[in-house]
Order: sequence, then C-alpha cells, then structure tokens
Amino acid sequence: MSLEMPPAHPFDDDKLREECGVFGVIGVTDAANFVALGLHALQHRGQEAGGIVCHHPEHGFNSARRFGYVRDNFTKQSLMETLPGPLAIGHVRYSTAGSKGAAIRDVQPFFGEFAMGGAAIAHNGNITNADALRRELIERGSIFQSSSDSECIIHLMARSLQRTIPERMEDALRRVEGAFSVVAMTRTKLIGVRDPLGVRPLVLGKIADGYVLSSETCALDIIGAQFVREVEPGEMVVITEKKGVESHYPFRPAKSRFCIFEHVYFSRPDSIIGGRSVYETRHQIGVELARETPVEADLVCPVPDSGTPAAIGFSHESGIPYAMGIIRNQYMGRTFIEPTEQIRNMGVRLKLNVNRALIEGKRVILVDDSVVRGTTSRKIKDMILDAGAKEVHFRIASPPTAWPCFYGVDTPNREKLLAATMSEEEMREHLNVDSLKFISLDGLYRAVGEAQGRSPSCPQYCDACFSGEYPVAPTDMINKGFELKAAE
Amino acid sequence: MSLEMPPAHPFDDDKLREECGVFGVIGVTDAANFVALGLHALQHRGQEAGGIVCHHPEHGFNSARRFGYVRDNFTKQSLMETLPGPLAIGHVRYSTAGSKGAAIRDVQPFFGEFAMGGAAIAHNGNITNADALRRELIERGSIFQSSSDSECIIHLMARSLQRTIPERMEDALRRVEGAFSVVAMTRTKLIGVRDPLGVRPLVLGKIADGYVLSSETCALDIIGAQFVREVEPGEMVVITEKKGVESHYPFRPAKSRFCIFEHVYFSRPDSIIGGRSVYETRHQIGVELARETPVEADLVCPVPDSGTPAAIGFSHESGIPYAMGIIRNQYMGRTFIEPTEQIRNMGVRLKLNVNRALIEGKRVILVDDSVVRGTTSRKIKDMILDAGAKEVHFRIASPPTAWPCFYGVDTPNREKLLAATMSEEEMREHLNVDSLKFISLDGLYRAVGEAQGRSPSCPQYCDACFSGEYPVAPTDMINKGFELKAAE
Amino acid sequence: MSLEMPPAHPFDDDKLREECGVFGVIGVTDAANFVALGLHALQHRGQEAGGIVCHHPEHGFNSARRFGYVRDNFTKQSLMETLPGPLAIGHVRYSTAGSKGAAIRDVQPFFGEFAMGGAAIAHNGNITNADALRRELIERGSIFQSSSDSECIIHLMARSLQRTIPERMEDALRRVEGAFSVVAMTRTKLIGVRDPLGVRPLVLGKIADGYVLSSETCALDIIGAQFVREVEPGEMVVITEKKGVESHYPFRPAKSRFCIFEHVYFSRPDSIIGGRSVYETRHQIGVELARETPVEADLVCPVPDSGTPAAIGFSHESGIPYAMGIIRNQYMGRTFIEPTEQIRNMGVRLKLNVNRALIEGKRVILVDDSVVRGTTSRKIKDMILDAGAKEVHFRIASPPTAWPCFYGVDTPNREKLLAATMSEEEMREHLNVDSLKFISLDGLYRAVGEAQGRSPSCPQYCDACFSGEYPVAPTDMINKGFELKAAE
Amino acid sequence: MSLEMPPAHPFDDDKLREECGVFGVIGVTDAANFVALGLHALQHRGQEAGGIVCHHPEHGFNSARRFGYVRDNFTKQSLMETLPGPLAIGHVRYSTAGSKGAAIRDVQPFFGEFAMGGAAIAHNGNITNADALRRELIERGSIFQSSSDSECIIHLMARSLQRTIPERMEDALRRVEGAFSVVAMTRTKLIGVRDPLGVRPLVLGKIADGYVLSSETCALDIIGAQFVREVEPGEMVVITEKKGVESHYPFRPAKSRFCIFEHVYFSRPDSIIGGRSVYETRHQIGVELARETPVEADLVCPVPDSGTPAAIGFSHESGIPYAMGIIRNQYMGRTFIEPTEQIRNMGVRLKLNVNRALIEGKRVILVDDSVVRGTTSRKIKDMILDAGAKEVHFRIASPPTAWPCFYGVDTPNREKLLAATMSEEEMREHLNVDSLKFISLDGLYRAVGEAQGRSPSCPQYCDACFSGEYPVAPTDMINKGFELKAAE
Repeated sequence: MSLEMPPAHPFDDDKLREECGVFGVIGVTDAANFVALGLHALQHRGQEAGGIVCHHPEHGFNSARRFGYVRDNFTKQSLMETLPGPLAIGHVRYSTAGSKGAAIRDVQPFFGEFAMGGAAIAHNGNITNADALRRELIERGSIFQSSSDSECIIHLMARSLQRTIPERMEDALRRVEGAFSVVAMTRTKLIGVRDPLGVRPLVLGKIADGYVLSSETCALDIIGAQFVREVEPGEMVVITEKKGVESHYPFRPAKSRFCIFEHVYFSRPDSIIGGRSVYETRHQIGVELARETPVEADLVCPVPDSGTPAAIGFSHESGIPYAMGIIRNQYMGRTFIEPTEQIRNMGVRLKLNVNRALIEGKRVILVDDSVVRGTTSRKIKDMILDAGAKEVHFRIASPPTAWPCFYGVDTPNREKLLAATMSEEEMREHLNVDSLKFISLDGLYRAVGEAQGRSPSCPQYCDACFSGEYPVAPTDMINKGFELKAAE
Repeated sequence: MSLEMPPAHPFDDDKLREECGVFGVIGVTDAANFVALGLHALQHRGQEAGGIVCHHPEHGFNSARRFGYVRDNFTKQSLMETLPGPLAIGHVRYSTAGSKGAAIRDVQPFFGEFAMGGAAIAHNGNITNADALRRELIERGSIFQSSSDSECIIHLMARSLQRTIPERMEDALRRVEGAFSVVAMTRTKLIGVRDPLGVRPLVLGKIADGYVLSSETCALDIIGAQFVREVEPGEMVVITEKKGVESHYPFRPAKSRFCIFEHVYFSRPDSIIGGRSVYETRHQIGVELARETPVEADLVCPVPDSGTPAAIGFSHESGIPYAMGIIRNQYMGRTFIEPTEQIRNMGVRLKLNVNRALIEGKRVILVDDSVVRGTTSRKIKDMILDAGAKEVHFRIASPPTAWPCFYGVDTPNREKLLAATMSEEEMREHLNVDSLKFISLDGLYRAVGEAQGRSPSCPQYCDACFSGEYPVAPTDMINKGFELKAAE
Repeated sequence: MSLEMPPAHPFDDDKLREECGVFGVIGVTDAANFVALGLHALQHRGQEAGGIVCHHPEHGFNSARRFGYVRDNFTKQSLMETLPGPLAIGHVRYSTAGSKGAAIRDVQPFFGEFAMGGAAIAHNGNITNADALRRELIERGSIFQSSSDSECIIHLMARSLQRTIPERMEDALRRVEGAFSVVAMTRTKLIGVRDPLGVRPLVLGKIADGYVLSSETCALDIIGAQFVREVEPGEMVVITEKKGVESHYPFRPAKSRFCIFEHVYFSRPDSIIGGRSVYETRHQIGVELARETPVEADLVCPVPDSGTPAAIGFSHESGIPYAMGIIRNQYMGRTFIEPTEQIRNMGVRLKLNVNRALIEGKRVILVDDSVVRGTTSRKIKDMILDAGAKEVHFRIASPPTAWPCFYGVDTPNREKLLAATMSEEEMREHLNVDSLKFISLDGLYRAVGEAQGRSPSCPQYCDACFSGEYPVAPTDMINKGFELKAAE
Repeated sequence: MSLEMPPAHPFDDDKLREECGVFGVIGVTDAANFVALGLHALQHRGQEAGGIVCHHPEHGFNSARRFGYVRDNFTKQSLMETLPGPLAIGHVRYSTAGSKGAAIRDVQPFFGEFAMGGAAIAHNGNITNADALRRELIERGSIFQSSSDSECIIHLMARSLQRTIPERMEDALRRVEGAFSVVAMTRTKLIGVRDPLGVRPLVLGKIADGYVLSSETCALDIIGAQFVREVEPGEMVVITEKKGVESHYPFRPAKSRFCIFEHVYFSRPDSIIGGRSVYETRHQIGVELARETPVEADLVCPVPDSGTPAAIGFSHESGIPYAMGIIRNQYMGRTFIEPTEQIRNMGVRLKLNVNRALIEGKRVILVDDSVVRGTTSRKIKDMILDAGAKEVHFRIASPPTAWPCFYGVDTPNREKLLAATMSEEEMREHLNVDSLKFISLDGLYRAVGEAQGRSPSCPQYCDACFSGEYPVAPTDMINKGFELKAAE
C-alpha cells in the first residue's frame, strides 16, 4: 500500500547508499533534542526521512516522523516541545531502490504496545529472511502497518512468550537473519544490539550522567559526548539510569565481518572505526592506489566530495599536485519537486562544474570512491574533456563493485552494476578514458590496517559487494531467484 | 502515543457531535472520486479528518488520510490520481473529547493484510467493550497502531480462523459490543454491516452498474445515485461487481433501536430516514413544541443553522412570524491556528451577529435544537438582550440531554451536562431567560412518526441521552466507574 | 505584469459581486486586531485577498497583505504581533472579472511615503477615469506598482502641491471620477471620504475612546463598537486621538445616489442602512414581489442564502408556506486548487442539494435575489425538477439586470447579461420554468422606503444596472467603445 | 515599512557577504529557465531571495520574486510556466545587516512602466548617494515601494526627459554614485552596465543565437554558454536579437578599481576573472602566505570551504602535508526556523566537526580566507584544541579587514571589525592561538598578478576594506557621521 512518493533525484547519483542511521540517548533533559542533533550528524546515512520516539514519565511515549532533512523538521521549537522526556531514540533512512514509493508509516522507529508496556525500535541493516517471517506472522494474525522488513522484529516480540521486553527482543532477533544494528527503548531502558557478525556499526558514548548509542562517532561529537567503545558484534547492551550499562550476548558466537564499504564511502570521514580515523583510512587507500596504479599526469583531482581524502593520499604518494578541478555547488540540495524538463536534463551540471582554467591542456587523474552504474563517471569525464583536459585517468578507491549488497545498502540489481558485466578494460572503453584502475581487494585490506591483505579462507570483513562471498545467505533473494557466485 | 494535535475550537460549540460518516462505492471508474464527493456531503458527521482506501486490479490498494476538510484535500488532481480503481471506501471523523490529541494513524479506514489478501474497514459508531478486547488482543501478540476502538475489528479479523474475509468480519463483529455501521472492502467486495440494534444509519444506493453504501441519503444525491433501501439492523451486505448485492444476517435478531438524535440534529436536513425527510421531521418537532409550550411573543427566531426547521414549524403552528434574528457569518470556518488572545476571546461573536434593528423592543422566541453545556445558549441570550430584546423565550427541539452517549457521539462527561444537574427551572434561572421549555420525550416520538409516543416498555428508538436507558451495556465505561441510572 | 493567479471558481457563481470592503480604527490598543475582526465581518464584500496597514509611534508603519480569507491569515498571533500600534486600516477585495490574474501587489491598502510622512489608503468603489489618469501620471514620471485603479490616488497625492496629507487627498480626489469610499491613515490621522454621490457606503462608529470607519454596521457589531452615523456623501472626516472627528466637504455638492443593489444583495442582512435593517428591507422586497407577481403554489423556497429574507416576506404576504427546499452544504468553501475533472463538473451540486422528500409533487416558488447570466438559475431549476417538483415559479427580488456596473461591482460584459438580450418571456423560456417574474423598479423603490416609487426625473438611488442611467459618465469605458443607453 | 522577516542565522557567520548576483539572457526559448539556472550558479552571491522578470511578445512582462534558494523556487514547472518568452533577467540578493527586516517588495528586479513601455532592472552594488537621491525624488512626487537603494534608478529613469529607455538609463546612472553592475531589460533589449570604476564584475557570454550577461563566468558554464568578454568598466552594452551587441560609454572615463575581495572570497573558485581562474589566484595567495609567514607544523588544514584553495597552496609551498582536519556537514543549510534554544546554542558545531583522530597531538596550521569579527575563528580554535591539537597557527588569506565596504558588501559597523580595534598581536591574544598571520596587501596584489605589488599612488584594485582608501566618497555614510581615514 503506497502513499505519497517523495520526488525522485533529478540525476542518477550512481552511488551505493547506506540505508539507515540510528541514535539513542538516556539520562539527559529533553533527550529528543540530542537525538535530533545526532541524526543531523548521521544524515549522510539516510536523507529521505527521519523519526524520533521519546518517553517521559508523565507524558508517556510520543513520536514524530517526517520526510525530509532532520534540520528542516526536528529543529523547530513547536515540534520538539511535543517530544519531552529523558529517553529517546531516532532513525534516519533512505528507502530501498526496489520499493515503489514511500509512506510515512514506513518511517522508523517502530512502536509496539505489549502487555508489559510499550517499546520502540530503530534498525540499521537488512533482514534477509524478512519475507518468510512476514508471511508466517500474517498467517498467525499479525497486522503489518508498513512495508519495512524491520517491522517483523516488533511482531516477533509481540508473540514472544518471554516476560520482559529485552528478553522478547532477544527472542525475536534470534529468529532474524541478516545484518542489524538495533537501537530500542522501553519506558526506562535504552537498548543496543548488533548482529553476530557486526556487519553494521554501533558505538556507545557517555554524556554527563547519561549514555548514548550511535551508528557513528561523529554523532557523539556534535552533542559533546565521549566515545566509550563500540558495541561488540553479537552484543546486546541494556542501559538504565539506575544501573548503567549491562551487557548480554544472546547469539551464538561468530567471527566478525564488519562492512568494509563503511571505510570506503558510507561513514563520515570524521568518524572513528576500530580506533582509526575514517579520513586517514581513505587517505591511505589513496596511497595504496598510487602505489598499485601509477600514471604520469599533471594534476590529481577528487570527484567531490567523497573522493577527496583518497585524492589527497594519491597526490601525497605520487608527488603529483593535488587540485580542485571540479567544484561542487554547495546550494545543490537533494531533490527537485516537479521540476521543468530543462532542469531535469541538466543532471550533474546542477551539482558540479569544472574549474576550466585549471584543467585546460592538463593530464588529469580523477579519484573517485567507486563505480556503480558508471553513468555519473561518464558525465564527469565529458565535462572534464569539454573543459580541454588533455588526458583523463580514473583511479577508483575501491575494487570493482560486482555484487549487490543485501545487508542494508541500496544497490542496483546485479545487471546494472558495470563491473558485473564488464572487465576493467571494457569499463575503460565504455567510459572512454585514457586509463581506469581500481584498487585491489588486498590493497584495500592493507589500507584498512590488515598488513597481510585479505585472508582468503577467512576474510576479516564483509566484502560481498566486491567478492560475491556473502557471509549470511540472502534467503529471501535466493527464493526470488538470485544466483550466488559459483564455487570455484 | 500522541502526535500533532489539530488546533482547538476557539469557542465552545456546545453541541453533541456525531463522530463519523462512512461511504463506499463499487463498480465505477475512479471510485475514489465518488467517495470524495460522498464524504464532502457527509462532512457534518466528522470535520476533523478524512481518509480513503481504494483498490485497482493492477495498482493494488492505495490510501490517503488527511486532517482537515474533504474539500481541501480530496479534490486535488495530484492526490486523486494516486487513488485509482473501481472500488473505494472512505471515512470522515471527529475525535472524541476525551482524547488528548490526534494522530494521522488514528484516521480511518484501517487496513490489514491477511493471509488471503488485504481488507480495509471504516466504522461509524462506538465499540463499548473495546478496552477489554484491546487488552486481550495485545496479550495475544497484536500490535495496535492507533488509539481508535475501531482497530480492534481488524485485529479480531486477523485472528479469526474463518477462510474468507466476510466470514472473518462476521466472526470479529460477533465479539464486538456497542453500535456500529461498518463499510469495508476487499480486492473485489464492498461490504456493509449494521449492528443488531441498528443504532447508526447506513443506506444502500445504486449508480449505473455500481453500488453505493453511505451513512446518509444526502451523499447519494451528490453523486447522482438512487436510494435503494436502508441496510437493515443486523444485516451484512456483500457486494461484488459480478453478483451484485448478497445479504446475510450474522447476528442474533434484536428489536431495532435507531438513534433518535439523528432526527433531531446529526443527520442533514435533506437526508431521508425511514422514508421521511429529516427536514420535515424537524419542522414537525417545531409544531409539537409550539403545541406543548406556547408563549406570547413577536418573533420566532432560529439559532442558526440547526434550529431553523423547528423554528419554521413553531412559527407555522403558533402563527408568530418567523424571522432571522441572528445572522451567521458564512466565512466562519472550523478553527483558528494559533489565534491571538483577542480572537480567542471573541467566541460566538465571530460566528453569529444579532439583527439588531429587527430584535429591538421585541419579545423573541429562540428555537434551538438542544442544550448541552448551556454555555453557547448563555452567550446568545446575552447578545439578544444587548440588542434590546424585551423578552427572550428559549424553546428546545429535544428533551433535556441528561446522559452521555456511548454509541459514537461525542458527549461531555455527565457532570458537564446542564440537564444532569439542574431542573428545567434551574436551567432557566441559570440562563437567565424569561422562559425555557423543552419538547417532551413523547412529543419527540410523535414528531418522528410514533403517533402514540414512546413505548415505555419497549422504546422504538435509542434515546439514552434523554432517558438514561442504555440498550447496550457500556462495558468499558462501567469498568471505569460509570453509574447507570438506578432502576425505578 | 501578472503573477500567481488564485484558483478559479469551480462553478459559475452567477452573481454580481461587491469588489471591496474597507475598515479603519484609531485610538485602541493593537488596532490591527480590530481591523482583522472588522474585515472578517466584511468578508462578503471581497473574498480574494485582504490587507492591513498600521502605525505605531515607535515601530512606524507596518503592513501585511494576503490572498485568502481574513480568518485564515489575520488571526495568527505570529502575524498579528508584527502589526502593532493604535491606528490601522484594512481592505478586503474581490478582483475584477477583466483582470487576467492577481498579484499580491494589487492588494490594498496602498502606501506612499511623502515628503511630510507616510500615508496608506484603502478604496471601495471604482475610478471611472483611471486609465486616463494613469497615462498622464506615467508620462510625468510616476512608477505604478499595481494594476489597480486605486493606485492613481496615491500618485496624485504625491504630486499635489498641498502641504498636509488630508489636503493632498482632497486635491487628488477632486481629480478622480466615479464612486469611492476611501479609508486612509497617516501617522496620527484616520481619514474617511465618500464621493459626492455617496454611491458606496461608509459608516462612523465609536469604541471606548477610539473611532471606527467601516463599509457596513455589521463590522461595528463584531468589535462591540457603537454606530454613530453614516459618513455623508461628499464628506471627508479626519479623526485624531486628540481632536476627535473633524468634518470637511471638499467637493461640489450633489444629490446623493446610493447604490440600491447594496439593499438587494451586497450588504449583510444584519447591517443597517439609512436607519433600516437590510434584512427588513429584503423581507419587504419579498412582500412587494408577492403583491406584484402572485401565483398559486404549495411552497415558497429561497435560493440559499441570499434569497432567504425575500422568500420569508413573500411567504408572509402570500400565505404560502415557507420551506427550505434547497439545502446549502456549509462546508463548501470558495474554491478548489487544481481540482479533478469530475469535481469541476459537479458545479452547483457541491454547494446545494434539493430536499427531495419535501419537493416531490409540489408546486414550488423559488425566490432568488437576482438573475445575472442565468446559468445557476438553470442548474437549480434542473435540480428541483429532477427531485419531482410539479411546477417551478421563479420570483426575483430585483428588476432585470441589464446593464453593467462601473462603480465598484464586478459585472460581466453587457452581452453576457441575460436581461440585456432577452425579454422577460424569453428568459422564462430560456430557463424553461412555469413562470419567471421580477420585482418592478418602482416596487423595489417602495421596498427601500420610497413610498412614491422611483422619481423618473431625479432617481433617489443609483440603479444604473437596472435602468442604464449612469449618474457619473464612465469615461474610460466610453473611450473603449461602451455605448450608453440612447436617450428616449 | 517592514514585513515578514526571514529567520536569522543560528550562528554568527562572521564573513563579509556579497549582496547580489545578476543574470540576464536574450534570444533563447524560455529564457527564464536559463536565468533560473544562472542564478542557481550565482546563489553564493545572495541566498536570501531571488527574482526573475521576463518578457514574451504576446504575454508581455511577467515576474516572480521569492524568499529562499533559487533551487527551491525557480525549478518548479508550475511557476516557470508563468514566465514565458525569449528575454529575461534575474537577481539573487542578501539583505544588508542594517535593515531590520525584509519584504518581498525589496526583492529585485524592479519594474517600471514608462510612457514608451516597461523596463526591469537588477542591480549588484551599492549606491552611495541613495539617501540623498531618494529624498529629492520623494519631494518631487515619486512613490517608493521598497527600502532598496536600487529603486532610485527606476525613478530617475521615469523622470528623465530622454526618449528611449537606454538613454533614460544613462541619464539615471549619471546621477548615481557608488558601485553598480546593472542588468536591465525592455521588451526587446537586454542591457548591461558597469560603473566607471568597474568595482563589481559583469561578463558577457554567447549561447546559440542568444546572449548572456552574468556576474560571474561560472553561471555561463551551467547553461553551456561561451564566455565572450567582461563588460568593461564604464561600458553599457545594449543587446537586441536583431543587431546583437552594441557598446556605449556614457560615463566620464576613469581608472578601473575592481574589488580585490572578489578574488579572495566572493567569487566562486571555478569562475574566471581577468583571464585567471579564481581558484588558482587563491592557491597563489596560499603560496605567498607560506612565503611571508612560514611556521613549523605537522599539518595544513583549511577552514572549510573557503580556505581550501589557499591551504592547498600553502601546503604546496611549505611542503607541510595538507589534510582535512575540519569536516563540514553537507546537510547544513542556511537557517533554522524557530529553532529550540539548544539548537541555537550549538552554533558552529552544527556545521563543522573536527577530525579528532587526525588532529590529536599535532601542530596545526589553519588557513582561513579572512577574519571579520573573529567570533567563528575563536570557536574553531576551541574545537581544534578540544580535539587535542598541540599548537594552532592561523594563517589568513587576506590582510586585516579594518574598514567597512560601502560598495555592495555586507560588513559590520567598523567597531565590530576585529582589525579596526586591535593590532595583529592583540588579535592573536584575543583568539588565544600560537600564532596569527595575515598576508600583506602587497602579497595579495602579487597573488592576483601584480608582480610589483600595490601601487600606493594609484592602486590597481578597490581595497578599501583593508586600506581605508575609498575610491568613491560614501556620501550617505559621511552624512550620517562616518569618519574617513585621516590623510597621512
């Protein structure tokens, strides 16, 4: 059941997209204000919509869910006044490519009233057996209100025979397959859980007498919270104002497989993952890339903004001067509502312009984070050549993206992925550039700190989008006919 | 869990309020357009919000729910285009006085996905055992999305063991106590049900090859449909494009108890109930009132607009000239958003003005439909006296409203009802008018066509608001401590 | 230069329309609040847009101008707070049929900064030599900001050689031809002027220590002001907090010619004109109409709402029962924004419904205030016959409208006026009713209190729309080719 | 007369602000679409509001003016359809600090109807004798509609005795003192003028058979137009579809004094001024700055985004690694509407975050474009130190800003400028950093290509904000008591 669709992108963004960010806080005055700030800092993880649920001893649970940016909705006094209390969680989301529209009822956190009281949950990741679970739950009499896979969790909780909400959540999450970092709340508890492989991030912070859960550390910074530690793969933390943080491990132990693409693109450069600045990791990717794929040129230019740290690293390693050959229009927002034909056709030009006087007659290395469909790469190359560049060399800060992600990232169907159907040389010809090189998978592992590169028998990260090796079987997709990579 | 509250009335309307109107149509092109028109004609039954669900063979179920008038929301091309298909139902509602706010999720129709397909239902009435049902359903694992009593029906349906949706609905409605006229739909069926007592209205109409269900006949007129018959108390009609109307009687038979207040105030004067024009019934109430409570005066003036037909009848019977002594500002809408103090204090003056030159020095009979809290009556009396009237005589077209309604009407708590705590003479003193008279209960019954008046042993109508005799025990309210009238 | 057009009427309203209402107040706290209330009471004189200008000793002049109803714009605390001070004027308007669109810059009051300070003016009426004045002013270097004829006044004031603003206004208005009731203000003065013939109304009221100017008395009532007197034709009142009301007569004396249609339709029934209730005058028109055009019938029904008082009078005089055979949907607002085709085609049905059970088999007299294009009359007749009426007799509370108004009323071009091209019998055939009768011009004069009827040599009112006798030559229109009625 | 104020910045941006950008196009289909794109590219020159006027042979002049970003207003089909024709001009603006509010009537282009037809003008710059001109014009009977200094031009044109609009514009501009780049249009002509000193930029471009005028070349790029040449100081170009570009020189010749701050900050880095990329100039400023003010450190970090090119240049020259130590939140928009207290207090944190892991323990050089009030610099320094930096060295890509600009740039009053009241060492202490150094005025001149530095006797640029030497006497300001720098 679809309702109003938010307007589409005027140009093909041609990026993988993180689908969600989660944030929660307990033990502060007006927790929803902190959640709003946290979600603003996590906006890059989901720009379509946001929601906040909070609880106040007197006023009970309250919530607000809105399409659009956090900063346009959750900053207004008039709205925030309706969200009182010392405990709140929130969610930003980007809808999946497959869904035909978007309804406000799909916007998390989801809320459920149980016999022992209410609970709200917000979910980053993707449940790979959601279709099967939903079918089973409907047969048993559950009424779904959204098209979101995450709603399964709340119905599984409703049907659990356990006594407390955290126990019911454990019960529910044990039925769930896939990747999930969950932030949840009851009237008195803030709860965080990561799936056994820890595919998606979740960190714990401290602020005054309260605690914070967040997808990334950059959202701790904005509210002045201290980073404590990452929630561990397979861990559930239950936080109360009285007892502080309690830790449980409800799942069967497993070797962790953190998403390596969080390093490449999803996370913000000022976040810290595994003790390392994401910015520095990306800088190091550029260094590795320069070592692996050297080329003679006059300038190293980033494709703004995500290619910037790798381009700086590439320049540093290669000695070729770094320059901003492409300028981003900072007033370019997300979407247009009912644009004219002419606006729609402008595409990438509305967002980027070539620094013509700089580029003219030069051999230019363009550093980008990834190639997905390749459509934007072509347009950028055209702009650079129109501006009079002598040579264009693409250097990509990730290996070829040849497989879709089923763990909470919006990827096109496999046949739309350029690297799924073309070799590197075919891609170069398709883009019509002088050279096109990707960092190797081992190079990427080195850049994230694995000096020996990737362990083929037991990879340290989830790299399914590059390798096709899925650490959790994508049940629903297989049922729909998706073919896994043939064993070699 | 409350969300944005729609703004409050700037003045005390001091009326009982019907809480809902329902409408459905099958077998026409763009059914949602017809539903929008029908709901516009039923707007007096619920001004706060409206919703439409429709089904199209290709596009499946779609819905839209909005706060505000039908005419401001469901007329726009851009919205109505998202609601295709030959089958649709809709609902307008007014929220109960007791609820602290309103969320779009409380706006009907409610939708549920069952194993055998989706269904939507819209409900006019009130379920008197909803609290008990909700508690039971939550304990069994149902997740409620709204604070509406009507949502129980969809969850009861989800848990029914019957095979078809109409059978599940029968199953669900047999568990439900209270008053209900339900319009529902599946992918191929339009369904209408009235509770065994037939407290709330529901009529069947025909339009070209299609069928219509509506709370009142006035909504058939607007779309050019023909009135076929009333859905009978205790009847379920299941309408398909192929087989037309099929009739079932799933409930234990009972003697009908239609709400007599529909005649007095709720229904539109151009609707037909039981073969009689509502306008004529009200005219006749005025006639009975003139007979029962004659008084010498110069003018008979209605309190606009609901007192008008009775005032005309009163004038007709008494021979005292009818005149519009109070003029209604036709640009007065429902509410103000964040009004200034001064606007808020204007109260009834924003809506009504006395025709000063007409009233001055005159003995005026004011005919109103009812006295609830008495607050507006006092203000009107003040305005009339300020304008120089010599005498003010109130004549009320219904008996004293001394008991709350639990069958789908918004009434204040009993202690707020003027007639619950005061005798007629005390009320006259309170309002400080020269005389105040109500029609008798027997007089009212005569006016609606019962020549012998009310049958004390077996009243022909539900008149609980006047008599305190509740035809269905208000279970939830009794559990909350409401005291029934002592047996005499 | 046109800007955003407000949306069009979904059905042909088929009425003459007053184009403006004016209101001003001095000597009260937060004068703009009073002006907002006054304009709300005058909304029937102009529904398209409204504006307020106010002055505060510290904050200077402030203004707000908005499309839409007063009640939707000028009630909000946040807006009204920006309009402080003890002196304010306001305006509601309906745009002329001829203009292709509407711009907020056309919304009055107009403001001008002169060497001796600022002034704002609001104008009800029409300047019949505006085109000529505008051409002359542009040639001398004035920059017009609107397409409104009223802006001429402010430019003429700017170029006057007089020393004070009231003197400059006198200067300016002496150059102006046509009908005008002007409310204006400086930093310390509230000013009211009526043209020498007094075609449009303007009344003076008193509230506490302050004064009020208003188009009608109903707007005095809403703020609790006392009616003092009408501003006289050709009079200018200059009101200051210190000196109170000073009266001037800047124009050459003339015999007054008040617009008789104000009695028939424009003014609100609860206003008082010339010491008589407008309601009573309309009632009396119905009485005269019944005397002049009797007919046998079962019911007298008004066309709501404007035909109501005349219908009551007709019933009173004829003894035929009065009944509400046509019911008006009170939720029908002004316009639809981008409506669907189907909504657009519903026309009058969205607004009116026939009381079928009442009408069936009856001989019905329909009393309406006027026939302009006749389009609505036809639709209403169709509805009445569809509902089964046996006979339909139209009785019209004004003489045939055969000539356009050039004094501030929106009339169609002459060829669109039914009465300009057809005889009464042709109109009856065109409408296809059993009889159609208009009140005579003498009958109308009698109803407004001229016992001898109309004086042919020296008519007491402006009745150009009926008689074709224009008391002020419509200069601009004659220049555009309009042909006056041939002298007999 | 003020109207609705757009909401204030939540944090002190602490930047000089260009007040306007202008754009015009002739000889293309739907010129307004091109203007919208051009204004989008010029949005950095004025974010508060934008306006477009266009002309179509049949539909005449049309216009739209809106608060907010171009991309949120002038992309919608529904609006752009109201702006037809082959000729259009537009304007983006930022209101001056001094004005207390903003009204849509202050938004340019301004339009005037003259005896020989209509004309619209858009103005970038500031008229330094506007107060005197306005007073004179009002005395002669002109009615001003805005508080904008630019409106003087249209009134001077209206009163000119010349026959054609271009001649009237020459006449008007000869009366005007100050800095102005004007884009104007009649029904058939696109006109561009620069003041004799050429303080503000204006360039001419070509697109297919049409012509373009724009504040900067980056706006030519977005519509695919070719750069032809800069409009020369003191030149008026009159462009028609038939005759193409005609050039006039209506002013007394003068030595050009282009605003040097356009190079430092105002213009976009991808624009070309005087044949040089602005980006390269800023890079070169960084190089000069590194030469003039060397310091030992670990990292060179830009203050995003405007300090970036200079930081890259500084890194390049000094050999100290360039790194993004401060990350900008790309979802940070311009303003908040009615924000909560907490949001308001977040200030710069909502926009910037320190890359903590990168900065910790490092000696950091921060390169910023300018220091105005110093408030933001302090906050950034605090953030850097909080993140654990060992040393903080500020390097500023412009000389100390010690004097306000009166030529179209929004500067605080002189006493608010940090450099007006403190020496460099006092500023360092005030900011509490390890070192603070500004580029010298000669260094800046070298960076913009003047190998010999600044000519003291005859400076090549307008550098009044640094030097206090105003090339045009600021008449109005002097009348208000502003004291020029004492002659040395």
